Amino acid sequence: MSDITQFNYPTPIRFGAGVVSELPQQLETLGSKRPLLVTDKILAQLPIGLALRETLEQSAFESAVFSEIWGNPVISQVEQGLAAFREHQADAIVAMGGGASLDVAKIIALMAHHPGSVLDYEDGNPNQKPVENLIPPIIAIPTTAGTGSEVGRAAVVSDDASHRKAILFHPRLLPAMVLLDPELTLGLPAGVTAATGMDALSHLSEAFLVDGYHPMADGISLEGIRLISKSLKACVDFSAAGTGNTAEHIEARGLMLTASMMGAVAFQKGLGVTHSCAHSLSTVCDLHHGLANGIMLPFTLGFNRAACNEKFARMSVAAGADGTAQGFFDWLNDLRTAIGIPSNLREAGVEPGHFEDLVAFALKDSCHLENPVPVSEADFRSLFKDALGS
Amino acid sequence: MSDITQFNYPTPIRFGAGVVSELPQQLETLGSKRPLLVTDKILAQLPIGLALRETLEQSAFESAVFSEIWGNPVISQVEQGLAAFREHQADAIVAMGGGASLDVAKIIALMAHHPGSVLDYEDGNPNQKPVENLIPPIIAIPTTAGTGSEVGRAAVVSDDASHRKAILFHPRLLPAMVLLDPELTLGLPAGVTAATGMDALSHLSEAFLVDGYHPMADGISLEGIRLISKSLKACVDFSAAGTGNTAEHIEARGLMLTASMMGAVAFQKGLGVTHSCAHSLSTVCDLHHGLANGIMLPFTLGFNRAACNEKFARMSVAAGADGTAQGFFDWLNDLRTAIGIPSNLREAGVEPGHFEDLVAFALKDSCHLENPVPVSEADFRSLFKDALGS
Repeated sequence: MSDITQFNYPTPIRFGAGVVSELPQQLETLGSKRPLLVTDKILAQLPIGLALRETLEQSAFESAVFSEIWGNPVISQVEQGLAAFREHQADAIVAMGGGASLDVAKIIALMAHHPGSVLDYEDGNPNQKPVENLIPPIIAIPTTAGTGSEVGRAAVVSDDASHRKAILFHPRLLPAMVLLDPELTLGLPAGVTAATGMDALSHLSEAFLVDGYHPMADGISLEGIRLISKSLKACVDFSAAGTGNTAEHIEARGLMLTASMMGAVAFQKGLGVTHSCAHSLSTVCDLHHGLANGIMLPFTLGFNRAACNEKFARMSVAAGADGTAQGFFDWLNDLRTAIGIPSNLREAGVEPGHFEDLVAFALKDSCHLENPVPVSEADFRSLFKDALGS
Repeated sequence: MSDITQFNYPTPIRFGAGVVSELPQQLETLGSKRPLLVTDKILAQLPIGLALRETLEQSAFESAVFSEIWGNPVISQVEQGLAAFREHQADAIVAMGGGASLDVAKIIALMAHHPGSVLDYEDGNPNQKPVENLIPPIIAIPTTAGTGSEVGRAAVVSDDASHRKAILFHPRLLPAMVLLDPELTLGLPAGVTAATGMDALSHLSEAFLVDGYHPMADGISLEGIRLISKSLKACVDFSAAGTGNTAEHIEARGLMLTASMMGAVAFQKGLGVTHSCAHSLSTVCDLHHGLANGIMLPFTLGFNRAACNEKFARMSVAAGADGTAQGFFDWLNDLRTAIGIPSNLREAGVEPGHFEDLVAFALKDSCHLENPVPVSEADFRSLFKDALGS
């Protein structure tokens, strides 16, 4: 797995330890002369961020950096980044980071040559402005293994005041090139590794369970679950033990980075009730999206179990369990325990007082409309009641 | 499966019974006003060909038809098609048919705005001319379920005199849109259904066995094998029984058409010894490519068995067999018998006198260089000896 290989769908993806060093030649291929690096505040100061900045500075490009991204990204961060893009007269974006940086970068790219404000382009806005001008190309370099935003056509940003999440969607938000470099994820703390890993698992699982004929997504989901079963616990263990740049650590991180990308490829098929719960938990309690998915998964997948018994049996095979639905759930619970995901929401700081809001926001979220079993308000009450724990 | 769904990788693929009726709107999306329909001589006169011509004639487009394609396509057919493209001043190509029509259409598209002759652009030609001009968009409509050429970046054509096969490759040969309509394959004879189906199975199997890290291709391969296990025998039986336009027949044909597409998506990872044998059998004995693959598979996969035992066990699960490598081989042999694939080459008309040429051409073919086990001349001798039968 030390070789660098190229995947050609859904966008050219180059994978391998050290592949980030190809950045200058990839920028050249895109015809960029003035790239803007978009990354977050912390990453910009870490060795991997500093190394990337140095690579750009020592190359023939005129590059600039925007790194005012932190927390759940808000519109004012996009506006600052847009000002940086215009001031630099940038012609391409290098987006490096977790989901937040990648999403902000995508929206900067969309707004670069479009008039109006970010919310004018919100998906579902009845007065949505058309995306008709150039969107500068993005090279995406993820540093977490969870969202898979690097292969997605959507971006999420919150309103500064209301914290309401807005989704922007356009096929041309898909990055022009992805560099998947497992070395960039070696330093992720154990907790972030576990939570983002559960995000990837939730994408793979929910996409597989959605009704509809999409056998490529199904095959990719199962193989992604297999990769997670072979690597997530190892990544968390290596991280907790402070294991650095060893071949085994890099290999495990590579499997997770690929599984994360595959989760986002697969979920073009759809998501489900887990994501409605997680979106609500982020909005109401500011809970980390991956952690929210990780806590909810046994409850929400359990909700689908009777209707999808055969599919859970196939997921069980993929996870290396015994090929029964029960085997999959046992595997899931063992994995959660092994990587330190709290067993219920209360352990993660969610208060019973949040209950009504959690139900209300989850019900309004659109993801559960694709769930293989319809989800009623009573179902959400029951799910959150169980997930809160005693 | 009666709904029409859209797949977004590797190129937009629209799948569903009747989806071919979307052709005018897809041409409009591409901005085409003067499409050229490229298809083969026989298809142009069959009801599905006549219906497509009528659709184009009754639309607002100025369309023309080129249908002088038959047998294994040769360069003179491409040249005639190119003349038709230029005479019509076409701006897009609708490629309808099996692998031959799709490949000829791709080469016409490449040559439309490039100087010189077809062989100037042959892959590996030391004086290969650059592909630097416009390649008009192609909408691909496959009518067989085997080659998957509709999602491929390559095209094969033979020299008229020498019968030598030339391969042309360029990322922009990938069709801009694929319409996968199972209704178009309902009339395929049982023998063609079986032989092309084995071609798809050979792509899925060989791609899965190739070394290298490409988990998306692996997941797609296994899911494709699963679809074939659920549909190929049914398609052949429906065909032999003269079953027409029933829901069960359309569903089975849809699974095969998807599996065929997935085989070609997967084999960007590589192929192997089976294809070197099949290429040699086509060159030396003019044997149908799918039939050649179908006859060779038990021998060539058997050659890889010891080195890939675990992979064969996973293929066994995918095929619905018992999860052992032996179970996969039993399934493969039962399937071959059930769909009427000859058990050896002699039954398919290959003469022992072809033996030396078969070995020599197979050895020169590049596919076996990707085989998980190196293949020597002695190995090819042994494989062809076994496959010839007694």
